[in-house]
Amino acid sequence: MNTQEQMAHIGQAAKQASRQLARLSARKKNSILEAMAEALEAHRTPIQTANAKDLQAGREAGLSSAMLDRLELNDARIDSMIKGLHDVAVLNDPVGDEIAAWNRPNGLHISKVRAPIGVIGIIFESRPNVTCDAAALCFKTSNAVILRGGKEAIHSNLAIANALQEGGEAKGLPPNAIQLVPITDREAVRELCRMTDYLDLIIPRGGEGLINAVAEMALVPVIKHYKGICHTYIDATAKLDMAWAIAENAKCQRPGVCNAMETLLVHQAIADDFLPTMGERLQAAGVTIRGDETTRTHIPSAQAATEEDWFTEYLDLTLAIRVVNDTEAAIDHINHYGSGHSDAIVTQDTESEKQFLAEVDSSSVYVNASTRFTDGAEFGMGAEIGISTDKLHARGPMGLEELTTYKFIIEGTGQIRPSLKHKKS
Amino acid sequence: MNTQEQMAHIGQAAKQASRQLARLSARKKNSILEAMAEALEAHRTPIQTANAKDLQAGREAGLSSAMLDRLELNDARIDSMIKGLHDVAVLNDPVGDEIAAWNRPNGLHISKVRAPIGVIGIIFESRPNVTCDAAALCFKTSNAVILRGGKEAIHSNLAIANALQEGGEAKGLPPNAIQLVPITDREAVRELCRMTDYLDLIIPRGGEGLINAVAEMALVPVIKHYKGICHTYIDATAKLDMAWAIAENAKCQRPGVCNAMETLLVHQAIADDFLPTMGERLQAAGVTIRGDETTRTHIPSAQAATEEDWFTEYLDLTLAIRVVNDTEAAIDHINHYGSGHSDAIVTQDTESEKQFLAEVDSSSVYVNASTRFTDGAEFGMGAEIGISTDKLHARGPMGLEELTTYKFIIEGTGQIRPSLKHKKS
Repeated sequence: MNTQEQMAHIGQAAKQASRQLARLSARKKNSILEAMAEALEAHRTPIQTANAKDLQAGREAGLSSAMLDRLELNDARIDSMIKGLHDVAVLNDPVGDEIAAWNRPNGLHISKVRAPIGVIGIIFESRPNVTCDAAALCFKTSNAVILRGGKEAIHSNLAIANALQEGGEAKGLPPNAIQLVPITDREAVRELCRMTDYLDLIIPRGGEGLINAVAEMALVPVIKHYKGICHTYIDATAKLDMAWAIAENAKCQRPGVCNAMETLLVHQAIADDFLPTMGERLQAAGVTIRGDETTRTHIPSAQAATEEDWFTEYLDLTLAIRVVNDTEAAIDHINHYGSGHSDAIVTQDTESEKQFLAEVDSSSVYVNASTRFTDGAEFGMGAEIGISTDKLHARGPMGLEELTTYKFIIEGTGQIRPSLKHKKS
Repeated sequence: MNTQEQMAHIGQAAKQASRQLARLSARKKNSILEAMAEALEAHRTPIQTANAKDLQAGREAGLSSAMLDRLELNDARIDSMIKGLHDVAVLNDPVGDEIAAWNRPNGLHISKVRAPIGVIGIIFESRPNVTCDAAALCFKTSNAVILRGGKEAIHSNLAIANALQEGGEAKGLPPNAIQLVPITDREAVRELCRMTDYLDLIIPRGGEGLINAVAEMALVPVIKHYKGICHTYIDATAKLDMAWAIAENAKCQRPGVCNAMETLLVHQAIADDFLPTMGERLQAAGVTIRGDETTRTHIPSAQAATEEDWFTEYLDLTLAIRVVNDTEAAIDHINHYGSGHSDAIVTQDTESEKQFLAEVDSSSVYVNASTRFTDGAEFGMGAEIGISTDKLHARGPMGLEELTTYKFIIEGTGQIRPSLKHKKS
């Protein structure tokens, strides 16, 4: 079989599995998740043997120590996958939940009910724990999943997927509900992106290059988890202590993640009071500052920011700072340069707050808090398959509900539509 | 300007308008919709003059009488557009509606609130009234809209769009909130489909060819309104009178629309009682029947159905009939050959009903009613921009809520995340 045939085979099998998954009760699914957790425990040795093979190959291929670290499945990381399965088992199963229901004058009862999406493709990069986390969330929502991980983790990923499928099958998991694509060339990704007959959704997880490539190739709908150019705007009425603490936290608490702040906007009226101390605190924390002209009068050691800086996701201890005329200018900056991820206003003025919340076009808009809270667990959603920067279907942290669609159920007692009598559109 | 530059110009202007639209209150928007209705009334003569030009060109180009009919804007159709604007004005504005809200242990208050999508592209074929209907729904939800109608209706569409924009602007409609693409070549559609910097969503409305072409080209997310291969399944326990009436209605009441039945499935145990009379009633209504072998023993005049028939949307007085072993076989047939639009079971058995509702993977699943009810107005949704056969974001009839996205609003009192203390991965 060539790659195309092999991928079609995987797609057909997943579609078949998805029909059977639609028949499983929540209780049954939870017992299967528990069985998967036991199987991971039982397969700890083969998984770590497979992982050692990947690590060896990675070292030979000259992978960076950061990449080798992401690849490694030590005991703590296997424990964490096992815990993840238990955690997903106890979450509410959204499939079958009624979103709304109403009666029509003709006696029809209509309800809108959550249903599985069908077959979901997950395309991801080096961390092998994604195999387990993504499979658990897709299965919990009765979706079949096709996983396509990075070449460098192929042995680890196959070992995990096999353990989950094998362990689950003993308790009634349909065959091929969890499949890992064993083909490591790019052609397999291309096929996956175009299999509209079998796939209902693709979620790419990884760097900008991967996400752009998938979006460009895809005929199957894609939900993207793209970059986070997050802003904090310090309004004229902000409490200074709160503003300093929030800005420092948003930048420094974990600079390498998508919900960390990349640009700080400051109302001109508060710049005098706010910026000098802010500059000192940031520099003490090791932050390199790139500022506009006004900023540099208050923080003389700052470098000059260029147009490019406003568009940049540093993912590092670097911060762009700009002084703006008013809240409207801050909103315009965010909507123009931002990525629609997470943006905050620090203010004591309810009018500014209202305007900021209504007009900033981002998935998560904050008042008086750090943008670092954009996260499924921090939002209390229980589990997260990623953070969508798209606007359709799912926006912001994606939990179990976002892995479902809905259907309309219409219950009647023989209702038919009256005849048209020569009615013309 | 070439087509690419012209389209980018339109896209930029729409994006700009969408920012201003986000600032309008529901009350303001409704007064603008009323002003648009008045403007249509005032522009009745220029609209009909433009329409006469299109009709003349259409006759010269040899358009079919059905196409010319769809193109014509007689007084009744203009009345209907005006009524549509008034109807949309009185509907609830979903923007700002709270979908859910909760508090976190750290004191953050999180709410999930409906927000405009941004800029929506509508690509449609000959009916010029779509210009008005789609513009009204997009505007009501604070979305900027870029309309791209068929070449044959270009003068009519421009006249309607101009009347709406001009009439609305007098009451505060932002410039370029409603734009009609004046370029009639295919290149403009291609550009529209790929303008990810400016467009958030494309909704194609028209035949299979148009929808496939848009889906193939698009980088912007698309919600498709595809074909309806709708089924009615007569279960062993169905009441015969109800089954005959529902099947006849689903096929004959208006055969040319997407929610009309194309295939009738009959449980083997009821075939003897059900099929002969059904055949007589359908033939009396002028229906051509294509049946499987068992069907033809009961309806001898039926033609032999081929594999191709099960995949066909006749949109006409033709019906495929198949006898199946049980409910599971009916479900398998529907999931394999259907288009996920609307499918019905006629039954008195709650087990069959439950299984059918859970396992048929369609947007609208019926018990004891005609599939002809799949429609925004019939569902009580007030207005409809189409019927989605996709599973993401919107499925089934799409009303105003489906033209919105949501954002998370997080309100705090200075919350920050605790420091990591060497936490890894």
